[in-house]
Parts: sequence; structure tokens; C-alpha cells
Amino acid sequence: MRGIALELAKRARKSSKVLAVARGEERRAALLKIADMLEIKKEFILSANKKDLERAVGISDAFRDRLTLNDVRIKAMADGVRTVASLRDPVGEVVTGWRRPNGLLIEKVRVPIGVILVIYESRPNVTADAAALTLFSGNAVILRGGKEAFESNRAIAEIMSESLLLSGLPSDSIVFVDRIEREFVSELLKLEGEIDMAIPRGGEGLIRMVVENSRIPVVYHGAGICHVFIDETADLDMAMKIVRNAKCSRPGVCNAMETLLVHEAIAKKTLPRIAETLNDVELRGDEFSRTIVPSMKPAVEEDWSKEYLAKILSIRVVKGVTEAVEHIERYGSHLADSIVTRDINSAEYFSRNVDSSTVFINASTRFTDGGEFGLGAEIGISTQKLHARGPMGPFELTTTKYIVRGEGQIRE
Amino acid sequence: MRGIALELAKRARKSSKVLAVARGEERRAALLKIADMLEIKKEFILSANKKDLERAVGISDAFRDRLTLNDVRIKAMADGVRTVASLRDPVGEVVTGWRRPNGLLIEKVRVPIGVILVIYESRPNVTADAAALTLFSGNAVILRGGKEAFESNRAIAEIMSESLLLSGLPSDSIVFVDRIEREFVSELLKLEGEIDMAIPRGGEGLIRMVVENSRIPVVYHGAGICHVFIDETADLDMAMKIVRNAKCSRPGVCNAMETLLVHEAIAKKTLPRIAETLNDVELRGDEFSRTIVPSMKPAVEEDWSKEYLAKILSIRVVKGVTEAVEHIERYGSHLADSIVTRDINSAEYFSRNVDSSTVFINASTRFTDGGEFGLGAEIGISTQKLHARGPMGPFELTTTKYIVRGEGQIRE
Repeated sequence: MRGIALELAKRARKSSKVLAVARGEERRAALLKIADMLEIKKEFILSANKKDLERAVGISDAFRDRLTLNDVRIKAMADGVRTVASLRDPVGEVVTGWRRPNGLLIEKVRVPIGVILVIYESRPNVTADAAALTLFSGNAVILRGGKEAFESNRAIAEIMSESLLLSGLPSDSIVFVDRIEREFVSELLKLEGEIDMAIPRGGEGLIRMVVENSRIPVVYHGAGICHVFIDETADLDMAMKIVRNAKCSRPGVCNAMETLLVHEAIAKKTLPRIAETLNDVELRGDEFSRTIVPSMKPAVEEDWSKEYLAKILSIRVVKGVTEAVEHIERYGSHLADSIVTRDINSAEYFSRNVDSSTVFINASTRFTDGGEFGLGAEIGISTQKLHARGPMGPFELTTTKYIVRGEGQIRE
Repeated sequence: MRGIALELAKRARKSSKVLAVARGEERRAALLKIADMLEIKKEFILSANKKDLERAVGISDAFRDRLTLNDVRIKAMADGVRTVASLRDPVGEVVTGWRRPNGLLIEKVRVPIGVILVIYESRPNVTADAAALTLFSGNAVILRGGKEAFESNRAIAEIMSESLLLSGLPSDSIVFVDRIEREFVSELLKLEGEIDMAIPRGGEGLIRMVVENSRIPVVYHGAGICHVFIDETADLDMAMKIVRNAKCSRPGVCNAMETLLVHEAIAKKTLPRIAETLNDVELRGDEFSRTIVPSMKPAVEEDWSKEYLAKILSIRVVKGVTEAVEHIERYGSHLADSIVTRDINSAEYFSRNVDSSTVFINASTRFTDGGEFGLGAEIGISTQKLHARGPMGPFELTTTKYIVRGEGQIRE
């Protein structure tokens, strides 16, 4: 199995060398061609998708919905690829440069990473998104999707890969893994010389498996236990709007709020309004909160570190911004947290001491997103600290190299 | 053992929170105090060093020399710390920022990484260098040095750690691992929630062990198989200067040249000059080279991927820049490679297609170094592509976070 994994990685590696020096206009044109071909060959995708759906017995309605493709969704997929093609090209950017006293000119230039392995278990459209983003940033990609969407993923990858030939780029720039054994993933994760980066996208189990088994550097998107802290001086109307948005606009996503912290000095007037604003949410309060709104369920210790991904919210009253930060640092997941305040010192303290990928002041945590940040598209949100942190767009799929120009300089 | 490792990491973590918000002037002052204390307490260091030297029986003279400390070397160590204190502060830099159409102000701010584990087996001065660099960039450090320099390392770390108290910073910002079992390192490498980054510095065995066992992201400095390619149009006087410097100025280091590639069109006039210029170097040539300079030993396949770290050089004649790049990509280690040429197209082709951390045009590979780049100091040279690539200074010991300021914005 190791041999097959290696051979597959080497095919991607070879293509990556061509991609690395392809011009931006070639990569853009290839993506536009791919988008067209996805629409032209939609029947091929739909019939593959039908096979997946037929095989998927006993799955939930929500899951079936996520798995299902139709004309509208294929159009959206193609448009997603077109959006990526319209972004600013990260490749070739001169990040910084300077001349040394001895005359050497040092330039740090942005270049593709090489070969990126994306392991995902989500909807079939991730196949198109991930391939488009990696290709746009000049990388070859190895795609390994979940078994439920196997036929759909394969069909999409095949169309994309074949379209590349029409654009004069190597078809192996997109390599689809057509083996579903878990051990095959483990073999791929050992190829640290051949694959440069692994991105797992999916549940906690998948991410843990990848982190524990990989010799390749991994960048991943962990859990999202996001907090909103309503400070003593907060504009309460603003706070209600933000709380409603952060909890209810899409409760099942990583950037939704899971715990609300309220300053004790305003708890009495704030909590009843919260209960009213979130009257369709299950509230679980600490002891203090429940003296004010007795209808809340009691929160237990486990609630503070739970990613509900549902219309449930834990609530705690804290002494002030210091205790709020302590709570967030202890129980949070370092994805995104927000403070609602009018006090410049609280805002400063909060933003400096909360060690999260994104800290919001007077805005909803729901903005933690590549699209909302204006990055155009995202391959995920890194909750790690190395390489990339926060929403990851095309720039995060590149590295840099130094190019140093001299006129015969030697080191003394 | 896991419990002890965890407790140690938690001490560092706690200190890292204080360091993360300490001002630049506090971190600078602490380093200057440390430098003074290293000099004031030099007898303490020297007596610890004596113990190491007494215990080290049967080691080579070169190794004994590297292990030995004296007044001059302690002064140099202290001055190294002072140099770090004089660098530009990476913490707090606003890397980029923009305002979104909805009014949100997004800023990407440079912040410390947190807790960094440095595992090294080199000279005792690495203890001071590594601690100074991590501290300056606002991180807590866990230091695990080699057993041969154990007493010296411990003494240096102890002085640094105690000095921090005099500066009002937590002494656990520098945590020295006083256990030498290999298993203890493995335990530390499993603490992916507590330690943010691992940097192994040493031989191939150490690096391999860390990469294979770590769940913490690792940034490392691999082998250095550096090439110089003399193109058809090269200024041969310049080429000789560069070749001499790249091979002989310090043959035992990673950025020294190990293989020389020569364009076939100029091989006949160039190779005899090489043999003359490098008359104190053992030359191992390919078949073609040996027809020109028969006194060379024959190079075998293994020579092309060998890091000699000695006055040995393999030489190969190539058809041109394309074959030179192919050779480098096949056998090189992606650290640093150089082309000597007057042809703008060759220079462009070489710099775009050689996938190394640093590509030189008409300069010696020996410049691949934090100091020579003007970074002030380096914690190593990353031959990896993620997070950092090439010489790593204080900026590479930081991450970023997004701070997003609004006036009540919510996501539609």
C-alpha cells in the first residue's frame, strides 16, 4: 500500500513543479475552464451523486440534504470556482526586501507550497473548493474525501482533472484518492518528503487521527467554543443584536457563540432581556444568573467547554473583564471571542489577553470567515498558531523563498 | 513521567501569559540584566562546565573544544544576548489591516506564539541564544539540552531564570528540563495543547526522533546539500572566488557547498582552474569531469546526496541550466543553492525553478545565515515550507491574531 501511496504522491509532486512556474493568467484560465466543464458535465456528476444517495441508507434527513447535489448546487459550485479565479494572485508577491551593506539584494518572494493533501468528510462541493484554492495558489492537491460522497467526489475531481489538460496544465495537479481504507490515509501521512502540508476538514475524530499519525505538517480547524462578554458599559441594544446574531443566525457552525459572559454590575437588567431575546434558545445559567432568571436550567462544569452546535447557550456572570478573560482562556477553543463595551480599557485588555485567532470588539463572532473577512474564499479556519491563524485563503496556501542577488560577494 | 512533563509545561504556559502582554522595553531590560548576570556569575558557569568536561572522557578534541567555556566565550554569550535585545521588536507589529464595506476594521497583529520547546545537542551557548530569542519575542521557553553539556546548560539557564525575577518577569519564562531520559522528551512532545512549537537543533537522528514523535508542530533545520552551478556565461574569476568561499571558508557548516555543477560548454577551461583553486580539497568528479582533470577521484551515485561537512566536493558537468536544476531538485536538500552567470534568462530560470529556502545569483551560499541576512540572530534555518522558511529570527518566533473592531455589526 505504501508503494501505491508513494506513486500517487510522486505524480502530484511532478505536476506541482509545472504549476509552480505557471503564470497567474494560466492558472486563472484553467479555473474558468473547470467551472464551465462542471456545468457542461453536470449530468455525469448528478448520476454519480445518485449512486451515493442510493447507497446511503439510514442516514438523517439533514445528512442526506448535505449529500444531495442538484442543478442549483452545481451552478453554485462552478461559481465558487469562478470566485477563486477572480482573487488577487498570491504567487510572486515580493513580501519584503532590502539591500545589505555589502550590496547583496535580499528579496522574500511568495511561492506555492508544493503538494497539499486535503482530507475531508464534508459535502461534495468541498472537492471543487479545495481543488480550486490549491490550484489557484500554484499547488498540486491530493484529495481524499469521505466514503459517503465517494462517487460524487470522484466525478467532480475527474472533470476538474480532465479540464486541466484542455488548459495545458498537468491533469495530475488534482489527484483523487480512490481508495477508502483508513490505512491508506496513514500511508499518505507518512510521506513527509513528498507531501508538504496536510489539511484535515471534518469532525474531531478525523482531525485527531491526522494530527496523531502525520509526519507531514498539519494545519487544521479545531472546535469553536466562542464567547461573547457583555461588559458593564455595553450598549445593551447593541449587545442584544450581537448575542442574537452570534447564537441564532446559524447555530451549527464553528463561529457561533456557545457561552455568554455578563458583567455582574449589569446582570440584573441584562439577563431578563437575554431571556427574552433568546426565547427560542435553551439557556443554561450559573447559580448567580439563575437567581435573576430562575427559568434557566442550571449549567454544570462540562457546559463551559461544550461546543453545542445547537440552540443551547451557557451563561455565566463574571466580576469583570479580568474574570471574563480567565474564563475564556480556561474553557475556550481560541477560535473567536467578542466583547461588547464602551470602555476603551476593557476593549484593550480583552483584545490583548484573549489568545484567540480572532478577537472582536462590538461585533458578532459570526464574522470569523474568509468570505466575511474579504479573503474571497477559505480552505478552513486555522485554530493553530504556526503558519496560519484564523480564516485561511489562497495566501495561506503559499510559502516564501529568499532570492539573493549579488555581484560576486563572498562571506568574510 | 507524563505528570511531571505536564506540570513543567503548565509552569511555562502560565509565564507565557504574562510575557505575552509585557512591553518591549520590559523584555529588552530583562535581556540586558540577563547578559550582565551571565558575566557577573561566570565562575558559577565555569565550575559547572568543569564538571561536564571531567565527565566527558574519550571525546574528540573538536568536541571537547565545542564543549569548553572560558571567559572570552562567556563574554561572547552575554554579548549575543545584548545583540538580541537591540533588535526590532516583532511583538505588536500591525502586519496588515483593512476596513470592510460594512465598516468592520480588520487588523492582523503580530503576537508571541506562547510556549516553545527547544531540543538541542549543541554547544552550551545555545542555551543562552535560544532563551534570549524566545524571551525577546514574548514567548516562554522549555530548554532541553544534550547530556554532555548538562551541567553547563543548567547553570546558564538557572542564572537567566533568576535574573528574570530581578526584572519583574516570571522566572518560569525559562524552564530548564533537568531530566535526561529520552522518554521524557517523548512525553513533552505529546503535550500539543500546552506547548505550541518544537524546535529540534542537532543531528539527523535528533530531528528524525522529534518529527516522528511530535504532536506539536515542529520547525526544523534539515541537512544542507548546497550546490553552486557555473553557467556558460559566468565570469570565471567571480566563479572561482565564490566556489572557494562556498567550499572552504567553513566546510563543516550547513551552508557550505557540497556539489559543484559546471556547464559543459566551459568545462574544459573551468575544471582545471577549479582543481587549482581547490587544491586542498578532495575532488570527486563524474566521468566527463575526469576526462578533463584525471586526478579527480570518481564520484559514485551516493556522492550526489552526501553532506560531506568536510573538504570534499563532488563535481558534475551538466548540459545547461535545465539539467543543473534537475540535479539540484533530485539530490539537493532545499536549503541554499547558487548560480554564477551573466545571462539574465539563466538567472531567472534558476531562481524560479530551484525550490530551496534561499537561491543565490552570483553570491556564495555561505550567506544563508540570520546574521548575514541582517536578522540580528537566528534560532536556526528552516528547511521546511510551513510557518517559516530560511533563516529564522525573532519574527519567526511569533504568530498573528486578528483584531476586529466594529460598532455593533452583525452578519446577515
